[in-house]
Amino acid sequence: MLYISNKHGYKMQELPDIQSSLDQRNIIINKVGVKDIKFPVNINTANNVLSSVANIDMYVRLPADAKGTHMSRFLQILQEVNDTGKIINFDSMQELMTVMLEKLEAQSGYIRIATTYFIEKIAPVSKVKSIMDYQLAFEAEVIHGNTKINVKQEVIVPVKSLCPCSKQISKYGAHNQRSHIYIKALLNRSILADELIKIAEQQASCELWSILKRADEKYVTETAYENPKFVEDLVRDIAVELNQHSAVDSYELSSENFESIHNHSAYAFIEHSKIKA
Amino acid sequence: MLYISNKHGYKMQELPDIQSSLDQRNIIINKVGVKDIKFPVNINTANNVLSSVANIDMYVRLPADAKGTHMSRFLQILQEVNDTGKIINFDSMQELMTVMLEKLEAQSGYIRIATTYFIEKIAPVSKVKSIMDYQLAFEAEVIHGNTKINVKQEVIVPVKSLCPCSKQISKYGAHNQRSHIYIKALLNRSILADELIKIAEQQASCELWSILKRADEKYVTETAYENPKFVEDLVRDIAVELNQHSAVDSYELSSENFESIHNHSAYAFIEHSKIKA
Amino acid sequence: MLYISNKHGYKMQELPDIQSSLDQRNIIINKVGVKDIKFPVNINTANNVLSSVANIDMYVRLPADAKGTHMSRFLQILQEVNDTGKIINFDSMQELMTVMLEKLEAQSGYIRIATTYFIEKIAPVSKVKSIMDYQLAFEAEVIHGNTKINVKQEVIVPVKSLCPCSKQISKYGAHNQRSHIYIKALLNRSILADELIKIAEQQASCELWSILKRADEKYVTETAYENPKFVEDLVRDIAVELNQHSAVDSYELSSENFESIHNHSAYAFIEHSKIKA
Amino acid sequence: MLYISNKHGYKMQELPDIQSSLDQRNIIINKVGVKDIKFPVNINTANNVLSSVANIDMYVRLPADAKGTHMSRFLQILQEVNDTGKIINFDSMQELMTVMLEKLEAQSGYIRIATTYFIEKIAPVSKVKSIMDYQLAFEAEVIHGNTKINVKQEVIVPVKSLCPCSKQISKYGAHNQRSHIYIKALLNRSILADELIKIAEQQASCELWSILKRADEKYVTETAYENPKFVEDLVRDIAVELNQHSAVDSYELSSENFESIHNHSAYAFIEHSKIKA
Repeated sequence: MLYISNKHGYKMQELPDIQSSLDQRNIIINKVGVKDIKFPVNINTANNVLSSVANIDMYVRLPADAKGTHMSRFLQILQEVNDTGKIINFDSMQELMTVMLEKLEAQSGYIRIATTYFIEKIAPVSKVKSIMDYQLAFEAEVIHGNTKINVKQEVIVPVKSLCPCSKQISKYGAHNQRSHIYIKALLNRSILADELIKIAEQQASCELWSILKRADEKYVTETAYENPKFVEDLVRDIAVELNQHSAVDSYELSSENFESIHNHSAYAFIEHSKIKA
Repeated sequence: MLYISNKHGYKMQELPDIQSSLDQRNIIINKVGVKDIKFPVNINTANNVLSSVANIDMYVRLPADAKGTHMSRFLQILQEVNDTGKIINFDSMQELMTVMLEKLEAQSGYIRIATTYFIEKIAPVSKVKSIMDYQLAFEAEVIHGNTKINVKQEVIVPVKSLCPCSKQISKYGAHNQRSHIYIKALLNRSILADELIKIAEQQASCELWSILKRADEKYVTETAYENPKFVEDLVRDIAVELNQHSAVDSYELSSENFESIHNHSAYAFIEHSKIKA
Repeated sequence: MLYISNKHGYKMQELPDIQSSLDQRNIIINKVGVKDIKFPVNINTANNVLSSVANIDMYVRLPADAKGTHMSRFLQILQEVNDTGKIINFDSMQELMTVMLEKLEAQSGYIRIATTYFIEKIAPVSKVKSIMDYQLAFEAEVIHGNTKINVKQEVIVPVKSLCPCSKQISKYGAHNQRSHIYIKALLNRSILADELIKIAEQQASCELWSILKRADEKYVTETAYENPKFVEDLVRDIAVELNQHSAVDSYELSSENFESIHNHSAYAFIEHSKIKA
Repeated sequence: MLYISNKHGYKMQELPDIQSSLDQRNIIINKVGVKDIKFPVNINTANNVLSSVANIDMYVRLPADAKGTHMSRFLQILQEVNDTGKIINFDSMQELMTVMLEKLEAQSGYIRIATTYFIEKIAPVSKVKSIMDYQLAFEAEVIHGNTKINVKQEVIVPVKSLCPCSKQISKYGAHNQRSHIYIKALLNRSILADELIKIAEQQASCELWSILKRADEKYVTETAYENPKFVEDLVRDIAVELNQHSAVDSYELSSENFESIHNHSAYAFIEHSKIKA
């Protein structure tokens, strides 16, 4: 890019590059980069590719003697993802990390790509089909002093929870509400988001659908009443499933129940690693 | 403020005041001012004064020939509110508007002060007391071509709604969820936020409390089951009450039910004026 | 759908339909329906179709004697949009409204489809290409007592604003910041979102890009410094453009400047109709 | 509470207490409790007590054999804080933790109280006073297998950052923007939030005020221009200060710059502990 000039009268190659100079403060920056980028992405679904909208963070570790990173390079990596139509998944997150560390001349870093995911579901009785939305995220991380690229997959699954205490003590009815199940799993191989979503839905008092005809609404109401679960039960029952899932090396897991009898949430959180330290 | 100078070497009274010059584009600005100011405020409660945190917007209308408004004057009005310990209510909103129009040399304007409100409630069976939170806002407005100061009071009240259809078609149980009742009322006299909040709570399937012992939870569960309401019923039953309230000249009213069987909301909205045009 | 039964032992056609009964309270509901649906949508761009994620609200007016609406029908209309791959634009918003009013047996209603929009932009000096994100929404409305379907297109455009006062009074520099330009235009014919976005960008102190090389950063910095604008100037200069745009019958327009010298925003709002009442 | 009955016909002491039974799944829950409680709180300021609005989370660890926790007890602890007018600070966070662990029969737990904080500031030239808002949080934690109560204090401080690169390469001007400095410090003694806030403000390109007269605006503009800082400089310069602060045992620290030339943020994060493991 030689001697380009315009009405502002400068020449490109002469612009000083402050970010490449040395830093004297002797302080490591654990993460530096770009945050909160809205970007179009492609995601694998059970039988297709979904075009969705992502929120992306990309950081590298900056050694104590380096003054700064090169912010525009992060965006150029994303632009390359877009230009090549690359699909975001377990494998490409590792490729992206490799490219980022190389282009930013870094040894450790972090990438998060969070997006909306959709699954077409069939209503339980009427068999009407409708589309449910979930939150899905991929994280890739290389921790300082390590070379392994960790890839985590995260889902937020809206479900129905029904309170066992309320059911047992009441003459009729039981309070129930929408709950958000959050699972972030460190994976040793690629799995579909649907697997984690299904685990959350099957352990809830009942799963949700976007379209429910009256017969379906009866089914959901009765199924939830037959499967009362405390917030503690939800996370434990899901933990049992994740403990048995061979692709999951460790996980964080929570349920937030937007209590219909209070204006605050009931919350439970489990973290567990199957890997010996 | 004469001839103050500092290390930057300027003299205050010589700084040009661009905002006071004339504008040639001949375009009225309906609202101009400051937005999203976080500010400490005092609010009247049933038997006390509550210190809370507000989010404030203040705008005036700018005639076609005026280049700009004076942004710092809005903040100085708020500072004066704070220095004098003024309580935000129906009367002081009118005073604030009068001061703002005078200081900004405007004929019409808009002020919104939104805050969190608390009521100490008594649990229905155990009689345990606890604090419930609500959203409360005051709006004052002088519409162009008018001199009357309209004051509106707004509340957002979290309640429980239980679906009549789900109850009727199911062998047992009924889906229920948290709902947000929104009421914005144009008032002809001062009333406590508690009056609007009570109207919303009494027409819900059941009201909420922060602390419920088991006996209370039984009460809330059974009361909601005995009072099933569609989102349409909620807004209509509240509209009936607001239609009869002598302090309310007109209102907007909605209910958003965070459906526990879906991942979207059911919503209903009514607006009504008792004033003949 | 005849005599379907399952383990819950009911037959579908016998489930009572409470929503179809008569209502005695004699209160019109201005808007009733579904809110905050996340849904995949297709949107026209300058030279392609974009698959994006939308947030959707759909409401109809409910006459005083009708007990309730049929919530699942709204979702079935969306499902049909998805199944047929329909693109959301000026024309299809009108079709959607026609279908909704028919299926919900209503005379007036409101549909809002809000989504993220992307444009590939070329950096001003380096000519590097990158993707910018914008917020885009379509609204269709039939107002009660009317048969015309109004279609509005809304954009939120992030730009840079630089303060003329700060520039004039300071020895060097001038405070500048990100601003959000909001335009909602009632259209008489289909236009690309790009047209409204370009109007906002061209009237800002400078437009934004996702990737800027150093030469571009110099250009953006200097261009903004050469084009200082108050929040009042931003909305007036954009209003001048919208006043001349033949596709725009009326509009709402605002700029929110996230002031870099304060922790609140400067804000200006204009609404204008070219249609004689 | 013996043999209370009401129209629902139950007797309180006979209601079964499911939460106290034994659990067979053998899974520890790391955190269980209540989330997102809005609550009035009192906070120490430099020369007064501030009444503000908090968002509160309270969790305990649940052993593998315990079925559930008692959600209403968390709220009763908060109610007691309110009834006694207790001020939230370094010392009372430890008392709160002790009470929570005792009442919930737990050995480890977590409390977070996040609120809005205000400081009255004096404009740099005009000496006009105005109120600035900050986010403030206290966290208390007892980690499993430990008895020490860790108390952390967190602030989010809005400041102005000005880009050194933009300044150096441009003929005039430099892009600047609002930035959020986040500091979460593990403390060994009580300090005022003002100390952490001042550290952030002094290391920024310039601090913010709510009211700036023209002479002040000139000062802020020129001061920022004279103190250009990259996002990397901001966090490093603040880290230098926190490293020297005797009350701080460890910290997390970040700056998010809401870039005025992009629609995404520049971000840098440092975490550091002075305690030898």
